Amino acid sequence: MSSSEFSIIDEFFTLKSSQGVSPELGIGDDCAILDVPNDKQLAVSTDTLVEGVHFLTNSDPYLLGRKVLAVNLSDLAAMGATPAWVSLAITLPSINKNWLAQFSKGFFELANQHNMHLVGGDTTQGPLSITVTIMGLLPKGKRLTRSGAKVGDAIYVSGTIGNAGLGLQKAQVNEVSDNDADVGAYLNPQPRVELGQQLLTLASSCIDVSDGLSADLNHVLKASGVGANIAHDTLPLSNSVREHITSIGDDLWPYSTGDDYELCFTVPANNHDIETKLSAHAITKIGVIERQTGLRIQLTNGEKIALNKGYEHFNE
Amino acid sequence: MSSSEFSIIDEFFTLKSSQGVSPELGIGDDCAILDVPNDKQLAVSTDTLVEGVHFLTNSDPYLLGRKVLAVNLSDLAAMGATPAWVSLAITLPSINKNWLAQFSKGFFELANQHNMHLVGGDTTQGPLSITVTIMGLLPKGKRLTRSGAKVGDAIYVSGTIGNAGLGLQKAQVNEVSDNDADVGAYLNPQPRVELGQQLLTLASSCIDVSDGLSADLNHVLKASGVGANIAHDTLPLSNSVREHITSIGDDLWPYSTGDDYELCFTVPANNHDIETKLSAHAITKIGVIERQTGLRIQLTNGEKIALNKGYEHFNE
Repeated sequence: MSSSEFSIIDEFFTLKSSQGVSPELGIGDDCAILDVPNDKQLAVSTDTLVEGVHFLTNSDPYLLGRKVLAVNLSDLAAMGATPAWVSLAITLPSINKNWLAQFSKGFFELANQHNMHLVGGDTTQGPLSITVTIMGLLPKGKRLTRSGAKVGDAIYVSGTIGNAGLGLQKAQVNEVSDNDADVGAYLNPQPRVELGQQLLTLASSCIDVSDGLSADLNHVLKASGVGANIAHDTLPLSNSVREHITSIGDDLWPYSTGDDYELCFTVPANNHDIETKLSAHAITKIGVIERQTGLRIQLTNGEKIALNKGYEHFNE
Repeated sequence: MSSSEFSIIDEFFTLKSSQGVSPELGIGDDCAILDVPNDKQLAVSTDTLVEGVHFLTNSDPYLLGRKVLAVNLSDLAAMGATPAWVSLAITLPSINKNWLAQFSKGFFELANQHNMHLVGGDTTQGPLSITVTIMGLLPKGKRLTRSGAKVGDAIYVSGTIGNAGLGLQKAQVNEVSDNDADVGAYLNPQPRVELGQQLLTLASSCIDVSDGLSADLNHVLKASGVGANIAHDTLPLSNSVREHITSIGDDLWPYSTGDDYELCFTVPANNHDIETKLSAHAITKIGVIERQTGLRIQLTNGEKIALNKGYEHFNE
């Protein structure tokens, strides 16, 4: 770390979180030292957000600070892990203290909300992008994977689908309002960390909806060697998304939009009181796991449509 | 992860390393699951390399793949940790399969050499930069920090200093030759992992020389609340660096060049047989820790010069 990095870290990134598992040794040496409790395992995930690709140019730094952590928290949620530590690598064109103050405010608000400790990172000069490596804890041998879905399992999704995609469209044409729920869903997603932790003993598989419901559910189906039938009428959609679907005449639009960061999970067929157990969360049963591979959407008229694509990061 | 990311990872980043501590669950789910042995602690570090800042535009991808891991291994070496796991976030302008094949070849050659497992990462589109989060293991309660230097301790450095800085200068003016040792030191640094592990029970403090000897040693001095006197004549320099110093007329040049990735460490004064114990490594005693704070270089003529700066990442 160079001296100027040190001063950036001193100034903006040493807010202390008061709870959770403290690092044995934190920021300021060559490595952080972390003590994983004997009865726990470490869950690790890394996500990069690039300006102009994953967030709009000139994005609000406060919301960006929240979002870069939220999308990583969502990966922990999808494993059922409890957030513990995070490292943050920021590449930015120049030292903009106002930007850094707002970014770190958003980042730490969400980190503290989840009792996380920032344990290290890097600050470098270049085109704006942010890479977060998040570390959570799981009871030994327990985790939600993509590979556990079984024929007959019910398929659930949390929250509503398509709002972030619609919010992105509104933000891109500058129809941005602080009160718009869709823009809020895109700029300030809510990772379902508590739901994931509860699912640890209830669900047979889980994934977070980051690339679009069809792409992400297809990952589960492939990893589990099964297929799925979704009853389109049961898909949880807000009025705004329903209106958008009507206006563009494409019922399948919400399956391919990304960034919702809801959880899509499967539950064994015999778990009849799942909705009672998870009554603290907004969840909706949308379909069933079937032996026949592939993802099928059953429309109101009975027609079935195969869906096997979602958002792709690369445009070649 | 999107489908195209999946195929990139399948194609280029699933070479298996056969030794070391396997992840319980590796690439392909929302998180990797890692089992830290009960008698060990986790050492974690993150470094980003940005094209045009930390490496030259159009750098050889094979060497870049090695270097991005090497600079992170160097952080583990500076803590005395044994490498275990690594996550890799690559942002690149477009999918260039030849580039990815060469990059992953270099990355995995070095990873396998240190029995490391790639446990996850992210592939995104944007200006070329690479962020690595490296995880190593330490016996519980043991680590090399920057804060342990004591008055009277001897100061050592491994290898020679200034070669990478000179190699960068040569590479910038296209004086690149495959056989040039300085260019080699810059493009293909050798992290001192084994030395760091041996130092775990021998050294009182340690840092890796990434930003320049004066900047890095100053970090140790500040963290330890001490000062240092370096006998300039003892600084280990190659003939090429000596010639460069003569040509530019600046004896202090090697103290401020970065990227050497040697270890600078302190050893208690009573450890008289340190050089015997570390005879497998090229190390040189260059000075002594003193009570008076600050870094002083004592030249041949007895003159002392204060040095408190090194390479800074940001140019505002």
